[in-house]
Amino acid sequence: MADPTLPEPWMARALKLAGRGRYTTDPNPRVGCVLVKAGRVVGEGWHERAGEPHAEVHALRAAGQAARGATAYVTLEPCAHQGRTGPCALALVEAGVTRVVVAMQDPNPQVAGRGLALLREAGVEVEEGLLEDEALALNPGFVMRMSHGRPFVRLKMAMSLDGRTAMRSGESQWITGPRARREVQRLRARSSAIVTGVESIIFDNARLTVRPDQLELPDGEAIAARQPLRVVVDSRLRLPLAAACLREPGRTLVATLAEHGTERRERLEAAGAEVVVMPAGDDGRVDLDALLRHLAAREQANEVLLETGATLAGAMLEAGLIDEMQLFVAPTLLGGEARPLFELPGLSLMAQQKGLEILDIRAVGQDWRITARPRRSSPTSHEWHRGQA
Amino acid sequence: MADPTLPEPWMARALKLAGRGRYTTDPNPRVGCVLVKAGRVVGEGWHERAGEPHAEVHALRAAGQAARGATAYVTLEPCAHQGRTGPCALALVEAGVTRVVVAMQDPNPQVAGRGLALLREAGVEVEEGLLEDEALALNPGFVMRMSHGRPFVRLKMAMSLDGRTAMRSGESQWITGPRARREVQRLRARSSAIVTGVESIIFDNARLTVRPDQLELPDGEAIAARQPLRVVVDSRLRLPLAAACLREPGRTLVATLAEHGTERRERLEAAGAEVVVMPAGDDGRVDLDALLRHLAAREQANEVLLETGATLAGAMLEAGLIDEMQLFVAPTLLGGEARPLFELPGLSLMAQQKGLEILDIRAVGQDWRITARPRRSSPTSHEWHRGQA
Repeated sequence: MADPTLPEPWMARALKLAGRGRYTTDPNPRVGCVLVKAGRVVGEGWHERAGEPHAEVHALRAAGQAARGATAYVTLEPCAHQGRTGPCALALVEAGVTRVVVAMQDPNPQVAGRGLALLREAGVEVEEGLLEDEALALNPGFVMRMSHGRPFVRLKMAMSLDGRTAMRSGESQWITGPRARREVQRLRARSSAIVTGVESIIFDNARLTVRPDQLELPDGEAIAARQPLRVVVDSRLRLPLAAACLREPGRTLVATLAEHGTERRERLEAAGAEVVVMPAGDDGRVDLDALLRHLAAREQANEVLLETGATLAGAMLEAGLIDEMQLFVAPTLLGGEARPLFELPGLSLMAQQKGLEILDIRAVGQDWRITARPRRSSPTSHEWHRGQA
Repeated sequence: MADPTLPEPWMARALKLAGRGRYTTDPNPRVGCVLVKAGRVVGEGWHERAGEPHAEVHALRAAGQAARGATAYVTLEPCAHQGRTGPCALALVEAGVTRVVVAMQDPNPQVAGRGLALLREAGVEVEEGLLEDEALALNPGFVMRMSHGRPFVRLKMAMSLDGRTAMRSGESQWITGPRARREVQRLRARSSAIVTGVESIIFDNARLTVRPDQLELPDGEAIAARQPLRVVVDSRLRLPLAAACLREPGRTLVATLAEHGTERRERLEAAGAEVVVMPAGDDGRVDLDALLRHLAAREQANEVLLETGATLAGAMLEAGLIDEMQLFVAPTLLGGEARPLFELPGLSLMAQQKGLEILDIRAVGQDWRITARPRRSSPTSHEWHRGQA
């Protein structure tokens, strides 16, 4: 199959295997492992589900005695800690693996390199950094949580070609088509949490759940067994007790401020919500950075999907908390009275515009999906044009 | 080169030749002609400039005696009327061409078929309709003017990803980059007229000219020698006498209503404008359909480029007068306070949304160009989804 003298194809295979855990490993990272000896695969595996064995253990079990003298290609540095299945680095040593190639180190700076050190001390040859970018892209949330203490925030919006998400009345059903909605379901399914503003609940009564039949994946039911945490940003504690999301499988967290009385809070809790008190930001509303840090620290949230309206989306953008946007663009126009994509009240000069980097544009059924990320600082048009052909 | 038994490659060649007249034949159509005998080209030509010979005449001159017994591939039915160079149909007969293949008939229903009839009566074998769609696409404006008595209207807008054309203040310079601006220059160069609203002149002092250096075409100077007619929709006759466009090469037409006194009008004329009085539409402003019909009838306008703000763009869209949109999308966000793409004041329900058909999306430097056309009727989302995979 692959040329055994080239290591990339083996790591690419390991990355592909890791991707099979896209919807199921949370809060763990997606990891794949391929054991290669004499130019052929003797065992392979991937981490399937938190609480179940790591990728290396699956691969070693598949290889049995053939692991002796093999090279292990692993997408993430093997762990050196005593987890549910023992340290994977030790398991590789004990199985007689003589060489380990990893795509990336453990993203937690406090433990990075320990698994590799354990391997080296045991006489195993170690290489690192092969297809590292691809490995980082596989686990943007886990990497962000481990290295920065907050989740990776992906904003999803459905918009018309003139940048509108709903009519002025709030009417917004079916801007985009079924293929786009399937993609949104898959975005939900891979996320640890879905964050929304209370107004999205009040106006749309959004359920924010993963619907197995809409995923169009063979293992849809198993995937939907883990519902991402629903998080409602609700500074004034206005969440209706009858909100549909409170009666869905999975948990609903309501993030609010300390100033509210216990009565409303207790009634919400009785209705099924978990209420968490957050500090107030400069604008007197829930501090969004603090909320994200809470989700990382207390909920082990890796990828967060932001599904909300222009106000919260704009506040998150202004605060520099959006890492990626997926904009589903319908081939339609809603006009200047319709609801905007982002409220950015502080923006009044072209020089303050929010520059984006467009990573991908592709057709999704009748709609188009634009994947973009905010530029770290908005370049002036002068700087912008300098790199032009 | 091409398989002589297949006619398409010859017609494709003729279409390609016709395209060389893209910026210069106005108000005539772009036409190409290839003379083929025994599987090889014996002469070819294209219409270069109004007042100069038609494509067939160039091709016959190139072929000389070799035209005898040849097949002519022509992108448009040869004319049967006595023009500056005589009827081309007759010239083909006299040169001994024995077979004529045309991509499309003359789009003027009152003369369509006369050239072909003349050929047939002279014993020439005639075929029609080969690559007809491509031939129609070559001359959207000429076809529209001849068949419907109005120009083909192409709307160009530069927008942010959230559908904004300018800051609230009107500041809008350099939303898009130099590559997009080059494409806009080329759109101007191929147009008979550029239509704008008076506010675009008041706020931006737009010149609306073709700048030869910005075309980045080898014959830029020759192309820019013909400046498209500038048309300012100015119901209340507010065009500033100092407007830059009045001092540029070429003509500026100001379309207004009858109610204004002659003094202001005379001062504008003295400043270089041509003032034309239009009927008022239902909204009390210049009737846009009447204006377009005027441009077709009196100015022989084929393609009109609409470069304007949200109000006039919205009014044109509402009136069903936009045939194509070219939206240049910059990877940036301007926020909900910034100026919208279209004002569509009558639109308040999703069912009234303006459906578009997206024809093309491509990168243009750092920006993206979306080519779309309005759907003839806005389908409901139900209808919309029925055709989905």
